[in-house]
Order: sequence, then structure tokens, then C-alpha cells
Amino acid sequence: MVSKKALSKLKIIPLGGLFEIGKNITVIEYNNDIIVIDCGLIFPEDEMLGIDVVIPDITYLLKNREKVRGIVLTHGHEDHIGALPYILKKINVPIYGTKLTLGLVDYKLKEHNIKNVKLNVVKPGKSVKLGCFNIEFIRNNHSIPDSVSLAIHTPVGIVVHTGDFKIDYTPINGEVIDLHKFAELGRKGVLVLMAESTNVERPGYTMSEKTVGDTFNDIFMKAKQRIIVATFASNIHRIQQIINAAIMFNRKVAVSGRSMVNVVNVAKDLGYLDLPDGVLIDINEIDKYPDNEIVVITTGSQGEPMSALARIASSEHKKMELMPGDLVIISATPIPGNEKMVAKVINQLFKKGADVIYEALADVHVSGHACQEELKLIHTLLKPKFFIPVHGEYRHLKQHAQLAEELGMPRENIFIAENGSVIEFTKDKGKFGQQVIAGNILVDGLGIGDVGNIVLRDRKHLSEDGLIVVVVTISKENGKVIAGPDIVSRGFVYVRESEDLMEEAKEKIRVVLAECEKNHITDWATLKASIKDELRNFLYSKIKRNPMILPIIMEV
Amino acid sequence: MVSKKALSKLKIIPLGGLFEIGKNITVIEYNNDIIVIDCGLIFPEDEMLGIDVVIPDITYLLKNREKVRGIVLTHGHEDHIGALPYILKKINVPIYGTKLTLGLVDYKLKEHNIKNVKLNVVKPGKSVKLGCFNIEFIRNNHSIPDSVSLAIHTPVGIVVHTGDFKIDYTPINGEVIDLHKFAELGRKGVLVLMAESTNVERPGYTMSEKTVGDTFNDIFMKAKQRIIVATFASNIHRIQQIINAAIMFNRKVAVSGRSMVNVVNVAKDLGYLDLPDGVLIDINEIDKYPDNEIVVITTGSQGEPMSALARIASSEHKKMELMPGDLVIISATPIPGNEKMVAKVINQLFKKGADVIYEALADVHVSGHACQEELKLIHTLLKPKFFIPVHGEYRHLKQHAQLAEELGMPRENIFIAENGSVIEFTKDKGKFGQQVIAGNILVDGLGIGDVGNIVLRDRKHLSEDGLIVVVVTISKENGKVIAGPDIVSRGFVYVRESEDLMEEAKEKIRVVLAECEKNHITDWATLKASIKDELRNFLYSKIKRNPMILPIIMEV
Repeated sequence: MVSKKALSKLKIIPLGGLFEIGKNITVIEYNNDIIVIDCGLIFPEDEMLGIDVVIPDITYLLKNREKVRGIVLTHGHEDHIGALPYILKKINVPIYGTKLTLGLVDYKLKEHNIKNVKLNVVKPGKSVKLGCFNIEFIRNNHSIPDSVSLAIHTPVGIVVHTGDFKIDYTPINGEVIDLHKFAELGRKGVLVLMAESTNVERPGYTMSEKTVGDTFNDIFMKAKQRIIVATFASNIHRIQQIINAAIMFNRKVAVSGRSMVNVVNVAKDLGYLDLPDGVLIDINEIDKYPDNEIVVITTGSQGEPMSALARIASSEHKKMELMPGDLVIISATPIPGNEKMVAKVINQLFKKGADVIYEALADVHVSGHACQEELKLIHTLLKPKFFIPVHGEYRHLKQHAQLAEELGMPRENIFIAENGSVIEFTKDKGKFGQQVIAGNILVDGLGIGDVGNIVLRDRKHLSEDGLIVVVVTISKENGKVIAGPDIVSRGFVYVRESEDLMEEAKEKIRVVLAECEKNHITDWATLKASIKDELRNFLYSKIKRNPMILPIIMEV
Repeated sequence: MVSKKALSKLKIIPLGGLFEIGKNITVIEYNNDIIVIDCGLIFPEDEMLGIDVVIPDITYLLKNREKVRGIVLTHGHEDHIGALPYILKKINVPIYGTKLTLGLVDYKLKEHNIKNVKLNVVKPGKSVKLGCFNIEFIRNNHSIPDSVSLAIHTPVGIVVHTGDFKIDYTPINGEVIDLHKFAELGRKGVLVLMAESTNVERPGYTMSEKTVGDTFNDIFMKAKQRIIVATFASNIHRIQQIINAAIMFNRKVAVSGRSMVNVVNVAKDLGYLDLPDGVLIDINEIDKYPDNEIVVITTGSQGEPMSALARIASSEHKKMELMPGDLVIISATPIPGNEKMVAKVINQLFKKGADVIYEALADVHVSGHACQEELKLIHTLLKPKFFIPVHGEYRHLKQHAQLAEELGMPRENIFIAENGSVIEFTKDKGKFGQQVIAGNILVDGLGIGDVGNIVLRDRKHLSEDGLIVVVVTISKENGKVIAGPDIVSRGFVYVRESEDLMEEAKEKIRVVLAECEKNHITDWATLKASIKDELRNFLYSKIKRNPMILPIIMEV
């Protein structure tokens, strides 16, 4: 007889965050206990036309809902907490995280009008017990405060999940990543390491956040004009450094952009921003001060068209107008895919006569993620038996696996998993189990998951070639055409310039209809297909375009 | 009486290439003579949905067609020659360029079935006289061979147009940019400099093309597997270096991708590729050789979905199948906007088990454009009186202007122009004249300029929210509804999942129709507007989406 204990395995199941940067969510399961690490969203790919956000498919959690003890959050970025409002509607479980992380979650849930969720604050350095798991929160450094790594003590051994991190020896709040804890865990013995892979392609070290403050101080010292700084709303250390520079050089600080205002409020209320009285002023007040006494902190560092900075650049901001000579600092790097939007805003700002400082011109940004040497340090301190690279596209996971191998880990102990992979561990063995359901759920307006491949394919077709609707009214009695064909087009050609083309097209359809009538074809599917074929061939030969053709037959 | 000579001014009119990187075309005009420098296209912005390419508006040239003496080309890149097939159909004038440039133009014109164009080869170091202009071709270095700068000797002074260039002291073909000529022109006195601005944000120097060859040699020396190198088809020096490495390490070379095959053929025929017999093999033959004796040179370095490399990565290439262990080198940098496409291909290649080397991992690419120190050298050698920064977005032009100012040029002698600007020069003065027509002409299939803002706006709307067509048939006699409303949707929601929604929508429309009938509203515009409003409000309240709504009324 095999004892129950011998059968029990620890399962690690990433439901999101692999083969992608975003949508992080990982299941840790042992017998009747499941904990979930993070619950993030990802922004849609270019081909996901019209989609607002993408969230993970949590079918697996719903099937095992009675096992789920809670969701544990590593930090407050959208790709780690952004899916909570959607997921919590389907499965309401307690949430665990640090104070700031939960402050941001709380704000988000209120926005979505979600109540009755238990938010449990855990301090870095403390632990929480969920089912058979004991989860230690370990302070780390990242581009948002109160970020943690997790050491999950399980019946078969310790699993360390780094969360997102970098190693900053001179962080703004003085709180260096808890390397001693990593060393201690390494001494105890770590079964599995899950480490983030975002910057694995970059050699060396990520610079300290403090270096950006030095740049700010240099810029602020010389500047005589108004200063506008765009950065990520969640980068509270960055905001603190802007505030510090403002105070040092006698400037008032105003804040613009919805998420910036929100995050500054949450951070201030929870004590994460050191903001002496009288420094912060309302954006409506800025014109009351001389130019050299104003700093505006704003959203829009990614060039988002609706953001405060984009509105400032296009003179559509309600509260402030850009003036020639204003100094704009874009304190961020474009996320891949946003390069052209950012460039567009920079060009607009320059055209309006602003001076613009951005990453290509000065050190106004550092990454929040560990580069190769930092990753090596964590691997070396933890000395894990098994390794699962996480938080990366396939190329990142692959290269992180190579890095682990170079550090001496046997290849067979490294698991390059994908979303839905199940990796099963005992005290001394690890192997892939049977895959579970995982994937993308597209959110479009209030619809969650109702936009699928067919809808997206149609949107793509419509976006490239537009549409032609052909309407014909046919007699119920004898199948003869009573009215039409009428043609309506959108997104195809500008009609006034193409009247002849449309007349020709109608004539072609008339011939098809006559032909069908002659051959006694009254089957609508055949009729529609004939119209479609004729029109498609005609238009392609005339103009080399392939619009969507929608034949509609009305019967009276 | 004012003499005619006193009235004559040199006009420089950029019709494309400013506030953008691409679509380069500049008019140089003096009295009855016009020459045109370059005639390029630009690839569509993201919001130009369905557009193939964008060409410059040449209304100004058509209005002055009797003055145009010829088009002078600086080099064979698409953003300098790509609009020729479209423009030459409207204004057939002689073309002047170096041998390779015209070889590429010739190929392009044949593809478009354009005949009777006079192509006149000019050797670097030689001049051509067009009307009152004497145009010297000056050898420079760039990422395509046979690239030149131009010194245009005009009645009021010398205009130097750099074309695209870098300074390469160790170019692959041994032919260094003709710095002596630049020095000589500087001594003579240059009236106006037009210099490219692509890399003005980058400090220092662009590395020599040769450094990429060194990297290739290192990689080829160690590689035991098949090697696939993706690069720009027009980068013939790069291709030469791949061939050189192949020969050195005993590999045969096969070529894949339409434009790569074409360019290699043109370059080989014209003597721009040193390709000993027996090195080049057909792509169909590669399986006859051991893995370590094969190099495939391919298109697709920008991740273009239909390119050879993308097909290789997705196992859709007809002639070759990627094998685990194949080594893929992406010898290019993503053009802004292409980052995600390139990343996608890299991920796919890794997943198929290939090793992939790209810019983030090794020095497998250098730019073809001058960085700050190179620009300073050219400015310093030429000592121009006036300066027009060209070939750049606004930020580049602005920063190039700043660079010139830092080198001592008075601000009022620098002209940051836009497309359609006219800058008028006499021997000692320059000023902006009256703007002329310039702009984008969108090419979609065979249609040139028939897709405008309305069509694009509709395509965008359709792409984001899809479409709902509502058809109602109404009696001619009494205005009563005979059939319908019928609803057809595309790109909105997947219909099977939304039958209830559609039924509700129909009911709403029925109510509107009844209401209209009751109120004796038979005016179609009002009827359509009522249907649209009702449906729009209904759908937005139900699902927060805003599809295009097309009401169609048939009368019988």
C-alpha cells in the first residue's frame, strides 16, 4: 500500500505570465490547498483590435474553487493586480499583500464597485499561513515601493518566487532588498526558484533609482522655466525624487492625469510619499506662480493618446497650456510597441517650443528589473534545486535557463514552462504533469470573453479594406427582384470619387441576379455566394482591393 | 528699374522628408530650372489602416512640369527612390544616379511595367549639368553601396545635400567618403548645407561596417550548425561580409526572400558583389550539404509577417524547414514600430529550437547614419553660410539645428523647414517664402489618393467596434414596414453568443419604427437617424461598445 503522503506532490501551475510580459498569475497547489500568486492583466496585442485589456483564463481555479485559500500579491503593478476586479467577480477569496499594494487594489476595486473582498496586509519580513503553506514576504527593490519576493514553505520544500525585482544598494527609501533572507533560505535549502526574466538579455547591473535623482537635481538646478515631468504613476520613488528636487530648488508641485492623482493620493495617505505641507498645489493654481517655481508631474510617459502629457502636447489639456520654453522631462523608457507614440508626443512638444529631455538625451530613467549580474547573485544566494524562469517572453525564459545552466544547474532541473503547464515536485524530483486550461480572455467594454477569433478576424478585414453592403429585395411569390441592388460602402473608397465604380458594380450584380433568376436559383445561400464572388472578382480586378462584402436579401 | 538678375532667387522646397523619416524629395529651383533630389516613399503610420505605401504630393512639380530638368538620386533605398514608379507616371523626366542606384530603379520600373524612362548613370566624382545647375556627385558611406552626397552649383552659390551618410574609415569596398571634396567645397564657400539628421540624438561615432564582419567571423568560426542570416536586402556590404565569412569557413550561400534574391542579382550583375563561382547555390540544394557547410541569407530582419524569415520561423517556408540547433542571426535593428514583430519572430525561432543572435546579444548590426561627431565633422569641413536640417522627425531637425548653433552658426541662418516650405536664397540672404502644396498621397491597391480621412476614420471605427447593418423594407405607397428589421453584424460580438442581445435590439428598432409611423415620419434621413440613435444608446448601455451602425431602408 502506498501511503497518501507518498502520492502528494507540489504542483506549480503558471496560468499567465509565460511567453509574455504581463498577465502574471501562478497557482501553487498541494493536496487540498491552492494559493495564487498575483493576478495581472496584459494590454492587447496590435491584432486584438478594439480590445481594452486581456485577463487570464481561470477555468482551473473555478474548477478547484473550494481549494483556493487566497491570492498573494507581490506588488501593485497592473500586470500583477490588474485582473483582480474581473477575477474576484467569479471567485471571491481573501487577498494578501503589502500595505501599498493593497491600497492600490482597494482603489481599483472601488472603481469597479466591488465590495466584500478581504484585504489582508502583510508586512515585509512577516509570514502568513494559508492552508498547508507558510508564505514569507521578503522585501525587494522594484520600480514601485512595497514590492516583495515570496518564500513559500510547502510540505515538500521551499519555493521562492522573486516577483519583479532589482537590487538597489541605494534605494530612495533606504530599504535595500533583504539579501540576508535570500542567503538564509539558500542555507536552509530551496527546492524551486521562480525568478523573473525581463532583463535577462542585459549584461551587468541595473543602475540605482538614485542616479535618476542626481539627473533631476542637475536639470532642476539649471532650469529657469516651468518643468513638466512625465513618468509612470506607480513609480512612487521617482515621484518622490521629483518632489525632492522641487523642494531643493524652491518649486511647487502640481499633479496631472487621473492615475497620477490617484496614486499620489493613495501613496500620500499611506505614508509612502514624503510631501511636506505647502509643496503640493492644485493644477488650477500653477499660473499664480512664476515659471521657475513650478513642477508638474504627469502621466503620459508612454505617449498614450488620451494621457495628460499627450493632451498638453496637442493643446487639449483643460488645466494647463504648454508655453514655449517649458522644459518637459520624459522619465521613462517606451514599453516595446509604444516607441512611435512616444516619438509623436516628443515631436509635438518640440514643435510647441518646449525643451524636451528624454532617455536618448539624458539618464532620466532606470529599469525596475534585474540584469544578468543581479540574477546571478540571487541564483547563487538561493542555490535552488530546481528552476522555473518566469515573467518573460520565450526568448527571455530560454536565456534565463541558459544563465542558470552556466551557473551550474543541471539542464534537467530547469523547467521552461508555458501558461497551463503543470510542474510537479516531490522533495527531490520535478517533472511536467498534464497541462491544464490557460489562455487569454479578451475584455471589450462590458463584454468579457465574447470577442473571439472570428470577431477579431472580421475587425481586421474591415480595418484593412472596409466593407460593401449589397441589399436586394426579392418577391416571396416568384423570387423576382423587386428593389435593389443597393450598395452601401464604408472604409472602402470615398464614394463621390467612385460613383462610376459603384454603378459598374451594381450592373455586375444585376447580371448575376438575372442569371440566377433564369436558372431558377432561389436558394439564398447560392444567391449570396454568387453576388459575393462576382463583386469580389470585379473589385479586385479594378482596384486591387478586397473589401468585406455583405449581401443581404430581403423578402416581401 | 530692377534688373532681372536681382529678382532671381534660388528656391529650396522640400516636398517630403521633413517631420518624418521617409518620403524624401526636395525641389531646387532657379528661374526656369527645377531639379528634384530623390523621390521616396514612406510606409504607412499605424492609423493609415489598409494603406500599402505613402508617396509625396507632387502638385507643385505638375504645376511647373515644363521647368523640371530631372530627378537626381542620392542612393537606392526605398525612402529615396520608392515613389518613382508612381511619380514617373505623372511626370516623365530623366533620372540621374549612380550605377547601382539606377540598377535598382530599373528593376523597380520593370516590376511596374514602366518604360521609356531615361536613366543616366553618373559616377561619383563626376558632375552633370541640368539647366543652370551643375551637380557634382560625391562618394559617401552608407548602408547601401554607391551612395552619394550632392554639391549643386547654382547661380547664387553652392548647395550641398549630404543624402544619407556615415563616415566609415574602413568601408568594405575600400572607398571612404570623399572628405577631401567636402574640404575643398568648404574652402570655396558653401551657401547652403542640407544635412541628414537621423542619428543626431546619438553621441559619438557610428561604428564601421567592418566591425559587423568581425562579429560574423567569430560566430562562423565557432558554429557547427546551419547559419541563417536575416538582413536588409539593400545592405550589399553586409551581404558581402556574410559571403566572405561563408567562404572563409567553407560554407555555401543560398538566398531566400524575393527582394533579397532580386538585389543580390542586380548587385552581382553590376559588379557590386564579389561572389566567386560555386559559392552561391540554389535554396533547393541546401539539403544536399552538411549543416556546417550552409549559410542562408534571407529577408525578414524587421519581422515582416510575409517575409522569408517569418515563414521560416512559422514553418511556412516552402523551400526550407528550420531544424533545432540552426543558428539564426538577425543582422539589423528594428525600425521604430517594428519592435514587437521582430520579438515575435525571435520567440518563434527560439521555440523551434534555433539559437538566435540579435542586436541585444551581439554586435551584429551598425547604423548607416552619421552620429553627432560625424555630423560635426561635415559641418566643420563645409562651413556653410546657411543650414537646413533634413531627413528627420521634428525632434531630429531641432536637435540638428542646435548642433549647428553650438558649432557657431547664427540661429537666424538655420531654417527648420517643413514639407512645402519654400526657402529662398540670394548670395548672402535666406528667408522663408510662401508655402506650396505638399503632403501624403495614400496608395491602396491600385488606388492612388482615393483613400482619404473619411475612409480611414471609418476603417478605424470598424476595426475597433465592428459594424451592425439594419435593413428595413418599407412600402412605397403607405410608408409601412413590410419586412425587417433584419440585423447583420460583423466584428461586433460572436452572434451565437448574443442572440438575445440581437433580439432585444430588433425589438427596440420595431418600437422606433412604430413611433415614426405613428408620427407620420417618412423622411428617410430622420428614420435612419432615429434607428441609429436608439441602437447606439441601447448597445452602449448594455455592453459599452459603439459599433458602426448602418441603417438601410429599401422601398418597394
